[in-house]
Amino acid sequence: MKLLRYSVGSAPAVLGALVEGDVVPLSALPVPPGDMGALIAGWGRLADDAREIAWRATGRIKLDEVHVLAPLARPGKIFAIGLNYADHIAESKLGTPEQQVWFTKAVTAIHGPYDPVEIPHEPSCVDYEVEMVAIIGRGGRDIGRGDAPGAIFGYCVGNDVTERRWQHSSSQWSLGKSFDTHAPIGPWITTADEVTDPHALDIKCWVNEELRQNSNTSHLVFNLWDQIEHLSHAMTLEPGDLIFTGTPGGIGAAMDPRRFLQPSDLVRCEIAGLGHIENSLRLRG
Amino acid sequence: MKLLRYSVGSAPAVLGALVEGDVVPLSALPVPPGDMGALIAGWGRLADDAREIAWRATGRIKLDEVHVLAPLARPGKIFAIGLNYADHIAESKLGTPEQQVWFTKAVTAIHGPYDPVEIPHEPSCVDYEVEMVAIIGRGGRDIGRGDAPGAIFGYCVGNDVTERRWQHSSSQWSLGKSFDTHAPIGPWITTADEVTDPHALDIKCWVNEELRQNSNTSHLVFNLWDQIEHLSHAMTLEPGDLIFTGTPGGIGAAMDPRRFLQPSDLVRCEIAGLGHIENSLRLRG
Repeated sequence: MKLLRYSVGSAPAVLGALVEGDVVPLSALPVPPGDMGALIAGWGRLADDAREIAWRATGRIKLDEVHVLAPLARPGKIFAIGLNYADHIAESKLGTPEQQVWFTKAVTAIHGPYDPVEIPHEPSCVDYEVEMVAIIGRGGRDIGRGDAPGAIFGYCVGNDVTERRWQHSSSQWSLGKSFDTHAPIGPWITTADEVTDPHALDIKCWVNEELRQNSNTSHLVFNLWDQIEHLSHAMTLEPGDLIFTGTPGGIGAAMDPRRFLQPSDLVRCEIAGLGHIENSLRLRG
Repeated sequence: MKLLRYSVGSAPAVLGALVEGDVVPLSALPVPPGDMGALIAGWGRLADDAREIAWRATGRIKLDEVHVLAPLARPGKIFAIGLNYADHIAESKLGTPEQQVWFTKAVTAIHGPYDPVEIPHEPSCVDYEVEMVAIIGRGGRDIGRGDAPGAIFGYCVGNDVTERRWQHSSSQWSLGKSFDTHAPIGPWITTADEVTDPHALDIKCWVNEELRQNSNTSHLVFNLWDQIEHLSHAMTLEPGDLIFTGTPGGIGAAMDPRRFLQPSDLVRCEIAGLGHIENSLRLRG
């Protein structure tokens, strides 16, 4: 299934399923309105009903008549892996890490798939990073790579928007990764059963009309199963946690000269089978 | 007030106030049972009732008859500042940072003030770091240092338990800071009105009978108001977010030879006016 959060007019957020390009409300499910976290946590007992509702398709709405929101408003935690595609490692002028390099994005950075991303101030060094995002389902601790697929609820597209000056103002990147609006995700969650192989997906990012990142998730240095094993050795992964799985080469900071995002730029991040998100840039008022 | 979360026997967690050394249940308040986050978010309208309940002291229980839990089970986010006491910077053999160095702890690391902390495996390099923890109340974005005191709900004691090998296995510290059980906090939240000056508190940490850290929050390099200003320039601080404000010198990793925590060690972290937390160490089963 493809599960989304959306609103119509000024009404509060609700959950829906994408069915043949239209939106079918899932309001009949016994979860708080718009609470994707509750749907994920209860998926074991709710999935059949959700599928039945989607199949009946009662109350079908055109996709362009709704405001599509971030599929998950408040994940429990967001971990993101750095330096995880060979071409991005090369452009960063760093060696391939022997260990996985993890940082975090603040949960308050979560943002809608089509909403404007903020340039916090000028001068600014805001950059894009298209990433496949895995949403934890069952989760757990000490999940071996063989069991990792069973821990995943689904996938979506993410842009690990980064303020490079803040990222590098100290040794620790998390603050420069955590500005409000800097974690647009979506446009919906594609449940894991619909993704035959998450390590075989074309992944692309355009700025305006220019293709800047163009790779395939088969090029991940540490694949998602390795990532799940490593993270869950340290901590319990919980339903609704997000994992940003790394970005390929082509970021603005590695261009010569560097090209950071400007107000009114349009960034489109797309992953085969998962859809695309598209965010304009605007200077924070 | 001093606000705590606790349980009695196998009953679910509830909220209480500490009154003359006893616990007074706050169950009459209109918040979900045990949900300190909801109490903090609603404090503006709930404070008077909470004070009234504490004053009446109905249903008073002896403190040693309850299991005191982490005052907040799931903060929205946890940010922690590194290298923020001169003696800790010196022992780390690093220069005083020109910019604040921020990392995060996973919210799943939150742990009770008197519960055993896990050594995840052997060999292990688990270390202690006593810290004053600020709990965000009103929060907001772009909070100037002059307004920062008004953004704080209260304070508690924290131990920024750290697995040093994981901390330094890559350039980014967050994973080594995020093991389950590695963020014990408590024993309760002392509301900000009871803390005349958060920058004048003795802060100490003992391992078994040995005093290892012994300083005063007056020695913070970047004080809490600076910290709030800096963080809130990047992101919205929300009710219940936690800020670990830095640890003084005396950590085990800086001793010669290094002395990491061992199973059955007892770590006591104490801050004047905020109480103490005390966690034994145990090897993860």
